[in-house]
Amino acid sequence: MKILLIGATGTLGTAVHKALGDRGHEVLTVGRGGGDLRYDITDPVQITELYDRAGRVDAVASAAGDVPYKPVTEMTPEDYLAAFRGKVLSQIDLVRQGVPHIAERGSFTVITGILAREPIPTGSAASMANGALEAFVRAAAIEIAPQRINAISPTVFTESLADYGDYFPGMASVDLADVAQAYVRSVEGAQTGQIYAP
Amino acid sequence: MKILLIGATGTLGTAVHKALGDRGHEVLTVGRGGGDLRYDITDPVQITELYDRAGRVDAVASAAGDVPYKPVTEMTPEDYLAAFRGKVLSQIDLVRQGVPHIAERGSFTVITGILAREPIPTGSAASMANGALEAFVRAAAIEIAPQRINAISPTVFTESLADYGDYFPGMASVDLADVAQAYVRSVEGAQTGQIYAP
Repeated sequence: MKILLIGATGTLGTAVHKALGDRGHEVLTVGRGGGDLRYDITDPVQITELYDRAGRVDAVASAAGDVPYKPVTEMTPEDYLAAFRGKVLSQIDLVRQGVPHIAERGSFTVITGILAREPIPTGSAASMANGALEAFVRAAAIEIAPQRINAISPTVFTESLADYGDYFPGMASVDLADVAQAYVRSVEGAQTGQIYAP
Repeated sequence: MKILLIGATGTLGTAVHKALGDRGHEVLTVGRGGGDLRYDITDPVQITELYDRAGRVDAVASAAGDVPYKPVTEMTPEDYLAAFRGKVLSQIDLVRQGVPHIAERGSFTVITGILAREPIPTGSAASMANGALEAFVRAAAIEIAPQRINAISPTVFTESLADYGDYFPGMASVDLADVAQAYVRSVEGAQTGQIYAP
């Protein structure tokens, strides 16, 4: 398949790129600062340009999303808006604008995360963003069929434990290679409206 | 208890007002166009003014939130932003700004809805907004304790079936009086981080 991979040069994106490439797919990498195509999906105009440039694809996979972390009483409306624009609206717009550009049975795969269901201190914006997207995935799935959409909602990466492990006490980690397989499952499988939680 | 009830003159708010009043609580009603205090919670400045005016309260209960309904392919980024501002950010800010104004073991109760888990066509912005808030409730609960926060996430109201029943085929409805009891449960009970789904 021809697959558009957004956030392709990040920690997760690199693993997803390898997994999809190993499966023989043609991966078009997209990033703000690196990749085959340089676009920022927090800008709807750049998403339009990205799809015009990429041509018809079979799948769109995203590994891109930024949210601020702060105690809830220190968050501002601007922080929640930044989380909404940086992870929710960006990926929703990737789907909304992508519908006419992907194959009849093509798929969208977006990134969320465990904080949707398992909160941690300072993570209220991340939880909010992940919960928003996962509910959107369930809703969009019933409207865009036979095109499909799923979310990947991983726990902390094993490879990131040195940096972030203290935020997830007693919670299992997941290898990036296993998270990447969840993308393979979403792209090559037939399910839709699912939240895969590797 | 002294309770601040936002959206008090709406269909749901009126039922919640009656239920809380029947339990002997002092209810300060808040609305954009009616109630004891006239404030619009989509404006953070008005939330600040509302808390300054209301003084210390034991509980804050919200029955206010607006989102647009359209097919996902007809939604614009502005529509999702309107849903975010109209239902998510408004209620999050009510909590964030409310923390210093409510009792040590006071509570926040926000309104979400069944579309968080059971999508319907044209409801992607509503699903997104409800999912966002429910994840926020779980996250905020662990930070603001011993203050509490819960969400009320009802199905379609029995009293609204004539207008909206066709959007919820085969789904059970709930009487407004039973939804109002979920607010009583949240306000008078001791649980936090819960999603009550009457």
